[in-house]
Amino acid sequence: MTDLQYPLELAGTAAFAISGALAVRDKGQDWFGAGFTAFITAIGGGSLRDILLGSYPLVWIADVNFIYAILIGFFCTLLIPGILLRLRRTLLLFDALGIAAFTLLGTEKALSLGVQEEIAVIMGVFSAVMGGVIRDTLANEMPVIFRREIYATACLAGAIAYVALLAAGMERQVAFLASAALIVLIRLLSMRFHWSLPRFLG
Amino acid sequence: MTDLQYPLELAGTAAFAISGALAVRDKGQDWFGAGFTAFITAIGGGSLRDILLGSYPLVWIADVNFIYAILIGFFCTLLIPGILLRLRRTLLLFDALGIAAFTLLGTEKALSLGVQEEIAVIMGVFSAVMGGVIRDTLANEMPVIFRREIYATACLAGAIAYVALLAAGMERQVAFLASAALIVLIRLLSMRFHWSLPRFLG
Amino acid sequence: MTDLQYPLELAGTAAFAISGALAVRDKGQDWFGAGFTAFITAIGGGSLRDILLGSYPLVWIADVNFIYAILIGFFCTLLIPGILLRLRRTLLLFDALGIAAFTLLGTEKALSLGVQEEIAVIMGVFSAVMGGVIRDTLANEMPVIFRREIYATACLAGAIAYVALLAAGMERQVAFLASAALIVLIRLLSMRFHWSLPRFLG
Repeated sequence: MTDLQYPLELAGTAAFAISGALAVRDKGQDWFGAGFTAFITAIGGGSLRDILLGSYPLVWIADVNFIYAILIGFFCTLLIPGILLRLRRTLLLFDALGIAAFTLLGTEKALSLGVQEEIAVIMGVFSAVMGGVIRDTLANEMPVIFRREIYATACLAGAIAYVALLAAGMERQVAFLASAALIVLIRLLSMRFHWSLPRFLG
Repeated sequence: MTDLQYPLELAGTAAFAISGALAVRDKGQDWFGAGFTAFITAIGGGSLRDILLGSYPLVWIADVNFIYAILIGFFCTLLIPGILLRLRRTLLLFDALGIAAFTLLGTEKALSLGVQEEIAVIMGVFSAVMGGVIRDTLANEMPVIFRREIYATACLAGAIAYVALLAAGMERQVAFLASAALIVLIRLLSMRFHWSLPRFLG
Repeated sequence: MTDLQYPLELAGTAAFAISGALAVRDKGQDWFGAGFTAFITAIGGGSLRDILLGSYPLVWIADVNFIYAILIGFFCTLLIPGILLRLRRTLLLFDALGIAAFTLLGTEKALSLGVQEEIAVIMGVFSAVMGGVIRDTLANEMPVIFRREIYATACLAGAIAYVALLAAGMERQVAFLASAALIVLIRLLSMRFHWSLPRFLG
């Protein structure tokens, strides 16, 4: 799995950049604003996790390939936005895979730094969703994960499953795949059946 | 006082979580959004202070009890929102006590890390108010402390009083209690008499 | 140039504070909100750069003179707002000089910490523009640099020029002045002729 992890992280970063750029369509931003938003969306979650944990250097600062992954993602949205928009449903599948990977890799990184399991779960969720929260806040909107169908909650469930399975003695790779499958499954089912959490004090 | 500090910090953290969750009532957020907002409100100020000072590990990452204090505060707003809302005036008193404690503990922590007094004052104010600023920004509103009656200014006055009294040679515990009393007094008087700062360039 | 750098940084910090305070005129904020916004605008970019790079202590925490520069800038906007507003065109020239200095000093600092050139360019741009991005986000507006005429793009061009000229073997001071001139020139021309980037997917 280690061999897969690096290309997976690069692909996930490019995917986050695409989602960031697509999110500001028709918002009146210029190319710089869109590129900046793509960048923040892609690196925001992991950077916040590492800053909170005091884990330096940040991943994308140590390895400039992440910058190029973001540039590739961004230029895809400049050059082939029509294709990306027609592929929106396919992209949602990739997004589900992406947040599953980011959640569990973030959880794992936090555990490897010696924090307690509750903290590792929070760090996993942050890795997956905080880029989007920052993106929405900069675009002057209430973060979509605070009100849309099950999204961050799927990450939360997967991260909790992962630390529970590890604590139960399951082998790391099996626990990773099982928890990732759980996140993807919850995401796909909640999109298919429009599940959502109850509104708060609604 | 050291014996009191720890339960005080936990209680203050729970109170901040309640204030965060109550702030997003009727904003269309789901349970996750409300819980997330409660969490950010509770840990935002202290985390920002520690990140700016480079003081690791962050308090709530080193001690998972703070996470449970937040969960308790959040579930109170889920289970007994009516009671909390009827207690709003009482909660404002606790809020005044809470920001007094957070301001002075934050100032003290900064001083103990060796920064200059002006910086320690800023860090004290940040500890008390930045969680709320982040909460309001995420909720897509102008931070309430930028326009409401005297709030952050009370923290500022108390933090300045604290470093001045220490510099004048007053014993730490006496200076702490006197400065805390000043913050609470300014808050209560400004609520009672609707004091507010002049609008800026109004 | 080293002799000039320190007063330049202090003056640039005061100028950023003025721009932050002027930006919240007629937004309903009180003095505290305006002062807080001035502060965040002035220290936001450099602080974010240093936090991302893990470079401690932050500049303004190590040297309290930056706090006084901000206070001077803020009280100027309180005491002589009319003069500042009449000087708005002159201030735009100083702003262009200021962002040129902050961009290149930020790029240089990142290079001196051993990061790759692409990262140093990003850090230079962040130093110059992120204070304004945070200011606008707190004021609940889409950041002005995402949609206005060429601004951050001028910083980006100057930072790229700087690392390219250094890589080509040019002496540091000459490269600095040439790149600063490029930033100021792009800014002034783009204001004069209302250049702007294409809207994104408009």
